[in-house]
Amino acid sequence: MIIVMRAHAPEEQIQNVIKHVEDAGFEVHLSRGVERTIIGVKGVSHDALTQPFESLKGVDEVIRVLKPYKLASREFHPDNTQVKVKDVIFGGNTLVIGAGPCSIEGEDMYRDISQAVKASGATLLRGGAFKPRSSPYSFQGMGEEGLKIMRAVGNETGLPIQTEATNPRSLQLVAKYADIIQIGARNMQNYDLLKEAGQTGMPILLKRGMAASTKDLLLSAEYIMSEGNDQVILCERGIRTFETATRNTLDISAIPVLKENTHLPVMVDPSHASGHMQYIQALSLAAIAGGCDGLLIEVHNNPEIAKSDGEQSLLPEQFADLMEQAKKVAAAIGRDI
Amino acid sequence: MIIVMRAHAPEEQIQNVIKHVEDAGFEVHLSRGVERTIIGVKGVSHDALTQPFESLKGVDEVIRVLKPYKLASREFHPDNTQVKVKDVIFGGNTLVIGAGPCSIEGEDMYRDISQAVKASGATLLRGGAFKPRSSPYSFQGMGEEGLKIMRAVGNETGLPIQTEATNPRSLQLVAKYADIIQIGARNMQNYDLLKEAGQTGMPILLKRGMAASTKDLLLSAEYIMSEGNDQVILCERGIRTFETATRNTLDISAIPVLKENTHLPVMVDPSHASGHMQYIQALSLAAIAGGCDGLLIEVHNNPEIAKSDGEQSLLPEQFADLMEQAKKVAAAIGRDI
Amino acid sequence: MIIVMRAHAPEEQIQNVIKHVEDAGFEVHLSRGVERTIIGVKGVSHDALTQPFESLKGVDEVIRVLKPYKLASREFHPDNTQVKVKDVIFGGNTLVIGAGPCSIEGEDMYRDISQAVKASGATLLRGGAFKPRSSPYSFQGMGEEGLKIMRAVGNETGLPIQTEATNPRSLQLVAKYADIIQIGARNMQNYDLLKEAGQTGMPILLKRGMAASTKDLLLSAEYIMSEGNDQVILCERGIRTFETATRNTLDISAIPVLKENTHLPVMVDPSHASGHMQYIQALSLAAIAGGCDGLLIEVHNNPEIAKSDGEQSLLPEQFADLMEQAKKVAAAIGRDI
Amino acid sequence: MIIVMRAHAPEEQIQNVIKHVEDAGFEVHLSRGVERTIIGVKGVSHDALTQPFESLKGVDEVIRVLKPYKLASREFHPDNTQVKVKDVIFGGNTLVIGAGPCSIEGEDMYRDISQAVKASGATLLRGGAFKPRSSPYSFQGMGEEGLKIMRAVGNETGLPIQTEATNPRSLQLVAKYADIIQIGARNMQNYDLLKEAGQTGMPILLKRGMAASTKDLLLSAEYIMSEGNDQVILCERGIRTFETATRNTLDISAIPVLKENTHLPVMVDPSHASGHMQYIQALSLAAIAGGCDGLLIEVHNNPEIAKSDGEQSLLPEQFADLMEQAKKVAAAIGRDI
Repeated sequence: MIIVMRAHAPEEQIQNVIKHVEDAGFEVHLSRGVERTIIGVKGVSHDALTQPFESLKGVDEVIRVLKPYKLASREFHPDNTQVKVKDVIFGGNTLVIGAGPCSIEGEDMYRDISQAVKASGATLLRGGAFKPRSSPYSFQGMGEEGLKIMRAVGNETGLPIQTEATNPRSLQLVAKYADIIQIGARNMQNYDLLKEAGQTGMPILLKRGMAASTKDLLLSAEYIMSEGNDQVILCERGIRTFETATRNTLDISAIPVLKENTHLPVMVDPSHASGHMQYIQALSLAAIAGGCDGLLIEVHNNPEIAKSDGEQSLLPEQFADLMEQAKKVAAAIGRDI
Repeated sequence: MIIVMRAHAPEEQIQNVIKHVEDAGFEVHLSRGVERTIIGVKGVSHDALTQPFESLKGVDEVIRVLKPYKLASREFHPDNTQVKVKDVIFGGNTLVIGAGPCSIEGEDMYRDISQAVKASGATLLRGGAFKPRSSPYSFQGMGEEGLKIMRAVGNETGLPIQTEATNPRSLQLVAKYADIIQIGARNMQNYDLLKEAGQTGMPILLKRGMAASTKDLLLSAEYIMSEGNDQVILCERGIRTFETATRNTLDISAIPVLKENTHLPVMVDPSHASGHMQYIQALSLAAIAGGCDGLLIEVHNNPEIAKSDGEQSLLPEQFADLMEQAKKVAAAIGRDI
Repeated sequence: MIIVMRAHAPEEQIQNVIKHVEDAGFEVHLSRGVERTIIGVKGVSHDALTQPFESLKGVDEVIRVLKPYKLASREFHPDNTQVKVKDVIFGGNTLVIGAGPCSIEGEDMYRDISQAVKASGATLLRGGAFKPRSSPYSFQGMGEEGLKIMRAVGNETGLPIQTEATNPRSLQLVAKYADIIQIGARNMQNYDLLKEAGQTGMPILLKRGMAASTKDLLLSAEYIMSEGNDQVILCERGIRTFETATRNTLDISAIPVLKENTHLPVMVDPSHASGHMQYIQALSLAAIAGGCDGLLIEVHNNPEIAKSDGEQSLLPEQFADLMEQAKKVAAAIGRDI
Repeated sequence: MIIVMRAHAPEEQIQNVIKHVEDAGFEVHLSRGVERTIIGVKGVSHDALTQPFESLKGVDEVIRVLKPYKLASREFHPDNTQVKVKDVIFGGNTLVIGAGPCSIEGEDMYRDISQAVKASGATLLRGGAFKPRSSPYSFQGMGEEGLKIMRAVGNETGLPIQTEATNPRSLQLVAKYADIIQIGARNMQNYDLLKEAGQTGMPILLKRGMAASTKDLLLSAEYIMSEGNDQVILCERGIRTFETATRNTLDISAIPVLKENTHLPVMVDPSHASGHMQYIQALSLAAIAGGCDGLLIEVHNNPEIAKSDGEQSLLPEQFADLMEQAKKVAAAIGRDI
C-alpha cells in the first residue's frame, strides 16, 4: 500500500500517519520528495487492505498495490482452473456452448428446443425457472415445476443443466435439481447469496453486474471461493453505458483482462449483452476469437410468443447456422467446439 | 404501445403484426406513412406491457407509452405520499436528517454519535449491522448484536432507527428491531428481497442501484408496493460513471425527475455518492436546494479508525456545522429542518 | 414523428399541438386512447426533424421515427459503399490492415516500421504528424515535417498513408500529403472540420468520439457526406465507461449495429480502445470475427522510448504474429487479408 | 511518479526499469516488498509526466503523483482567481447569472429577451451565433450577423456578452464582437482552438465535454493558460451517462471537486445538463447551494418556435421566478446575486 501525502504536508501530519500505520501492524518505508512525501506500507495482507488511511489528515491518496482478491487471482494460482461438470469441461481447449430459452415455459417446448440445440452441438442446457424481472407485472418463471422439467430433459439428453438462483430458498431448490447454479447480474453483489452458493460446493456460474468492473467481478468470485469452493465460472454479459442501440454494451476486452488476472474460466452471453437477435452471431464469433471459454445463447422455437426475451432469442435453425460459423472461428484459433 | 414497422415493410408483415396484436387482446389503430407504417396498440395494461412484439418480422421498434410502473406513479396517485415513522414524517415540509456511522462498532460509540447528531438536529438514526462489502475480507458488521445496540440507543434518544437488510433472514431480524428497513443499492434489483420487504408492511427506504435509471428505481418501488405496502421512501446515492474524482456521481437531477414522476418521498445520501468527506457539505446543501425530502449522512466520532467508510464520514462537529448551513438553505426555499 | 400527450391532457392543449404541427406544414394523424392522445405527424423530412414540439404544453414525449441521418443510412443506400484508395479497397471482402507508430518521430524510424508492417501484410500506413494530446506538455507531433516523411515512405512502399487533421489549417496540409484524412475521436463533433473535410473530396476516416453513440457517429458522417463526399470510412475506437482496466471500452457491438444501419465501411482501432499492448491481439481477432472491414494498429520498433502511446504499441514481431492469426480468423469467416 | 513492478518481477527487469528512469534524468528511490518492488521516481516535472514507462517489461502500473496540470491547479496558485469582464466579476462573492436564448434568431427577439432577463437581475447575456448541431440539417446559427445583434444589444443594456467560437475563423470574429469567448463542450478537446483562444488574451468560458473528467477539463484549461491567458472560467454542463430522463447528467459534485483542485471560477449550465425546462429551477438552486460562481440559463420568449433548444428554455417570467428563489438561496450561504 502506498500513502501519498498532500504537497507540503506538515511534518506532524506525516508522523501521525506513520504512527497509525505502525499501530496497525505494518512496516513503514518513507520517501520524501521535493513537494510530497510518500509513505510505503509493507506487510499488508488481503484482510488489512481496507484500513481507512484516507481519512487521516494530510493524506491525498491511498494506493493499494496488492490486488484486493487473492484466491481468484492468477498471481496466487498461475494455472488455468478447469471446472468439470459431467462430461463438459469449462476452461479447456474445447469451448462450452450453452443454449436454451430464457424461461422454461413448458415441458414439450423445453424438450424440443433442447434436442434441437444438442443436435447442433450445444453441450450445456440453460433456462430460467426463477426469473428476476424489472417489472413485477412480468412473468416470473415456473419455479420448482420448471426445475423438474429441466432435470427431466437434462437426463434425457445427457447434457448438464444450468439455471439461476435468486435467493437462499431458490438456491436450495436449484442445488437439488441443477448441475450448475447461476448467479445473475442483478445479484452479483448479493453477498449472502454468494456465500451460500459457495457453501453448496457446486459449480457456480457468476454473471458480471451491469455496473461492475472486472475487479468487482473477481471480488464477488472471491466471496464464493473464500467458502472453499473453487468451481467458479465467470460470465461477461454486457455493462451499462450511454449507448442505447444495444441493451447493454458487451465488454469484449473483459475476456483478455480476466484471462490476465484470473485463472477462472470466462464465458460470454451475447444474448443479454445485445438484446437484439440480429447482433448475436457477430458477437458470438467475436467472443470466440477474443478467447472466451464458451457462450451462453438464448434459443426459442417461437420467439414471437416467448414469455421473456423473445426479441433476443435465436430460432433453432439460426442457432445451427451460428454453430457452423463458430466451429470455423474456433478452429482458426486452435480450439474446438 | 406503438409499433413502428421498418421502412417499406411488406403488407404481409404488417398483417402478421396486426394479427398478433389482436390475438393478444388489444385494439389496433393503423397509420400508414409514405415510408413506414405505424401500428398503435390500444387497451394495454401494465401486466401486458412486456409482450415481445419486437421479435415479429418487419418490426423496427416498439415504443411503450404507458409507464411500466403504476402504484409508484404520480399519474396514478397525484398527491405526495407522506411516510410517518414515530414523530418523523418523510415527504412533509420538514426535512428528515438521518445520521450515524456506517457500521455499528460498539454500544458506547453508537450512543455517543447518536446523542451528538441528535443534539445537532438529526431526527433519524442510521447505522449498519449487516454490511454488504465488496471484499469478503472487509468487516461484515456486528449482526443481531448491532441491531440490539441500535434499538437500545433508539429508545434512549426517542429517534427512529433505520438499518439495512440484505437477505430474507436478516430482513426478519431487522424488521424485529428497526423502525425503517433499508434496501441497499446492491440489492435494489434483488426482487425476492423487495417482495418480502413489501410483505412486512413496514416503512422501506429503497436506495437506487449504481446502474439503475430513475425508471428502474420506480420499478423496484413497484415491487414493494405491489405487495400492498405504500410506505416506500426512495434514496438517490450516486450512479456509476467514468468520473473517478468521486466514488459515484450524485445524480442531483434525480430529485426533480422523481418528484415529477412519483408521489413517494425522495432522500439523498451524499456520503456514499461522494465517498470523500470534504464534498459532503456542498452536496448536502445542493440536495436540499434541489428539493429533496431529507438527507442520510455518515457521522463517526473517530473516522481514522472506523471499520468502514471512514474516509467519507463527518466528525460530529462537522455535522453540527453542516446542520447550521442546512437550516438556512431549507428556510430559503420555504422548508425547515 | 409521433407526439405523445400527457395522460388526460385537456382538449385545448391537443388542439394547440395540432395547430403547431399543421402550421409547420405537416399532416396530422390523431389517435385518442383512454388515457392519452397520440398525434402522428406525417410528411416530416430530415431538415424538419428538429422542430421543438417538446416545448408545447401537454406534450409528454416526441418520438422521431425517421432516422436523423439520410445519406449515411442503409435505408437510403442499401448496397455497401466501397472506398478505393490506390490499390486498397475499404468495404470489400479483403480486410484493410493499417499499421504504424502513434507519432512520426523521424524518417528512419518511420521507414523501418513501415517496411516491417508491410512485410507482415499491412496494406495501409498510419502515423500522426499533428497530435491532439490531453496535456499541453506532451509531444505535439512533427507537423509538416512529419507529413513529408510519411509521403516519402508512402511512395517508397507503395502503400497509401493516413494521418490526422485537427483544424482547417492542418487539414489543408494533410490533404496535400496524405491519401486518407483522419478525423480523430476528439474532433468527431468539430462540425466545421467535418464540413471542410467533406469539401476536400478525399477519403475521410472518421473516428467515433468517446461519448458518441453510433447514431451520433452517423450524424457526423452525414456532415461530411452532405458536402457531396461519400468517401467516408467509420472507425470504432472505444467509448468511455466506468471500467478502468482498459483505457476505453471497445464497443464490439458497434460493428453489427453500424453494418445494419449504414452502408459505409467500418474499421476498428484496438490500440486506442484498450490502451495496453497485451490486449490488442484478442481484440483484433474479435473485431475481425465480428465483421469489421479492417484494423488500425499501433506498431513501434521501440515502444519503451516512444514519444506517445508506447504502452499500447506492438513490436513489429508481435504485429507479424498477430497478422498470422488474423489471416486465419478472416479465412474462417470467408474473408481474406 | 511511482512504478509498481509485477509480483516477483525478475531482477533483470527491475534493473532495466531503473536504467530507463535514470536515463530520462530522474532519481530512483527503490522499495522492495515481499512480493513486489516499487520504484519511486523523483524529480519529475509536468513536461516529463508522460514517459511511457508502462511499456517496460515487468511493469504492472505507473502511478503519477504529480497532477498533470500546473497553472490551473490550486496547489500552484492557492488563491481564487477572479475574472473581471466590464462590471462583472466571476469568482467573487456575487454570483454571475448569464441568460439568453440558445441561438440569436433576430434583433427584436434578442433585445426583448435581453431586456427581460436584465430586469430580473441577469448580469451577462448569452446567445449563439455559430451553433454546433448534431445534425447538418439543423439551424446552424446566424453567423456574423448574429454577433452584430449581440454587440448592439450588449451595448444598449450595458451587459457583457458571451458567445461560442467553433473554429479559428469564428474565433477571430467572436473575439471582435464578444466580451467572453465560449468554447463549447464538443470542442473542449479541440486543442488548436484552445491554444488560439488562449492567444486572444480575452476571457474564455470553457465548457466541460460530455466524456471529460474534471481532470480532463483542467488539462484543457491548462492549454489556454499555457498561452499566457489566465482569464479562464470553467463550466459544468452535464456528462453522458446511462440515465435518459435528462439529456445529460449534471455532475453537481464537480463544483466542490473543482473548487478543491483549481483556483478558477466555476459556472453551471443547468439548461444543457437537463434538457427539460421543468428541471431547471431545481438544478439552478442546487448549483448555487453547492457553491458555484454563477449560472448560464437559456431563456426564450417563445420556446414553442425556438430554432434550437426550445424544450429546455425558460420563459422570461419563469426566469424571473427563478431569480427570486436564487437570491434567497444565495443569501442563505452568504453570497448574493
